[in-house]
Amino acid sequence: MDVRQLATDLMRDDRVALGRAITLVESSKDEHRHLASELLSLCAPHLVPSHRLGITGVPGVGKSTFIETMGVMLANSGRRVAVLAVDPSSDVGKGSILGDRTRMERLSAHSNAFIRPTPSGGSLGGVARRTRETMLLCEAAGYDTVIVETVGVGQSETAVHGLVDMFVLLVLATAGDELQGIKRGIMEMADMVVINKDDGNNAVHTAMAKASYHHALHLFPAKESGWTVPVLSCSALEGKGVEAVLDKIDEFFRLITVSGHLAAHRSMQNVHWMEKTLEEELLHQFMQQPQVNERISELKKAVLLGELSPFDAARKLVSGL
Amino acid sequence: MDVRQLATDLMRDDRVALGRAITLVESSKDEHRHLASELLSLCAPHLVPSHRLGITGVPGVGKSTFIETMGVMLANSGRRVAVLAVDPSSDVGKGSILGDRTRMERLSAHSNAFIRPTPSGGSLGGVARRTRETMLLCEAAGYDTVIVETVGVGQSETAVHGLVDMFVLLVLATAGDELQGIKRGIMEMADMVVINKDDGNNAVHTAMAKASYHHALHLFPAKESGWTVPVLSCSALEGKGVEAVLDKIDEFFRLITVSGHLAAHRSMQNVHWMEKTLEEELLHQFMQQPQVNERISELKKAVLLGELSPFDAARKLVSGL
Repeated sequence: MDVRQLATDLMRDDRVALGRAITLVESSKDEHRHLASELLSLCAPHLVPSHRLGITGVPGVGKSTFIETMGVMLANSGRRVAVLAVDPSSDVGKGSILGDRTRMERLSAHSNAFIRPTPSGGSLGGVARRTRETMLLCEAAGYDTVIVETVGVGQSETAVHGLVDMFVLLVLATAGDELQGIKRGIMEMADMVVINKDDGNNAVHTAMAKASYHHALHLFPAKESGWTVPVLSCSALEGKGVEAVLDKIDEFFRLITVSGHLAAHRSMQNVHWMEKTLEEELLHQFMQQPQVNERISELKKAVLLGELSPFDAARKLVSGL
Repeated sequence: MDVRQLATDLMRDDRVALGRAITLVESSKDEHRHLASELLSLCAPHLVPSHRLGITGVPGVGKSTFIETMGVMLANSGRRVAVLAVDPSSDVGKGSILGDRTRMERLSAHSNAFIRPTPSGGSLGGVARRTRETMLLCEAAGYDTVIVETVGVGQSETAVHGLVDMFVLLVLATAGDELQGIKRGIMEMADMVVINKDDGNNAVHTAMAKASYHHALHLFPAKESGWTVPVLSCSALEGKGVEAVLDKIDEFFRLITVSGHLAAHRSMQNVHWMEKTLEEELLHQFMQQPQVNERISELKKAVLLGELSPFDAARKLVSGL
């Protein structure tokens, strides 16, 4: 494989090359890892400045429609939009939330847009690495807006949050239970809450939900960025309110760019992933030792029976006793 | 040191022995670690069934008064109460939030109570280990209610939450900002919210705060225990409402005991600490290598400059490149 040629093609926005490059960084084979590293080094000096957006929400909230509507608006305004999706429930190779391209028909047909599901599975660090590398390849190919969709059902949000600049939580204004079903911790990550499906007869429910979220957000301490988390509403289906959402996103990026928070935040994310990966690799190496797995089962059993303290068990394991 | 004698004395509720035993488990010297392990093994079959309560809240919320008032009530009713405190801001040996015993005069003089600051500092796992072992020693000495106080300003809450059966968040009903200042994540750990200082002219503010917290708690998904998090109010100073708090605590423990959640939760906590300690020990061992620290600085610099991916940097570090 000619990595240099691939890099050149990719930076000319050859979509086939971009697709092949992403397949390369997604591979876990050692030989591919080396080629991928080389490819990313070649791309590194050529990344366009970008907005990295994470979008989450429970299934049924209308994420695809929302991303399509905002994506088309951005693409029409001349921005180049890449959409990636992290789906923890799908194994590598098998399906994905974006597998069904028909869900974003208009956006996927747009010349300024590129849609790619990111296969997940594996460790959190693994998901993060592949998503991050795919994001960098898109930025090398000139995409200045990268949207990472995640399904809002688990740990993948934490990973995605550690990769993007802004995290948007999409919610519904269903009566009564409107605040239910949002996983622990996701609310506090949000830089913006958007109430979708503000159409038909939903005006009253939307207003109530807005007040609820405003109130709830009050719970969390101020963001380091100095940003006050806004609650907006829109109808992604009708396009109503989506422009206001895009304006707020721009406002956020202006703030964090001027304040230096954007650059500082990205550096912090990198150090974070370095530390996380270090821990994961050390644990992985340790677990590779043939005798360790058996020993762990024994020790875990002793811990569960109360015969051994969890701290002693860990120490015994590490010291090979 | 005669560990067998120490265990016997401690189980006869010899307070001097209990104090010496705690000092032993707090020591980080290798020889002491071995003796402490032996001591804990001797104690393990003799622990009384207990309620393990975590109490947190920002400074000034009245934690000491609250713990003293509820502690004295429990002690008067025949329960045996041990109070431990985790203070991340104090170094080992130097002061502690409970260093000033005069803050809990009545409780510390009670024959059914034992108060001990747990020196903190060191890793989260280290704090957790020492607190957990101190808790077990108290249970071996016949204390059936262990209250762990934490100052509500950082990561120590996560550690304490991983050690106790029930986590109580103490808050104030100050007008306006009543929900501010609570650290990320702490709200969702709470099994009960108690609004303190419901005295004097605070009735209106208390009612408002109660509604706010009820509303905010609605945000979080249902607890695994099936428990609905209640919001109560009290005046720890006047004793008003504290009995209702104790009744709710009993209700919680009845529920989780009958459902089997208590036992399952404690087992899960043990496996969690075993895994956490394993990770910490592996990282610690790795960092002990003389060349590693220097290499980390270099790689971190390269990552911050964007010359190296954080994932590659970690891999290089682990593989010794």
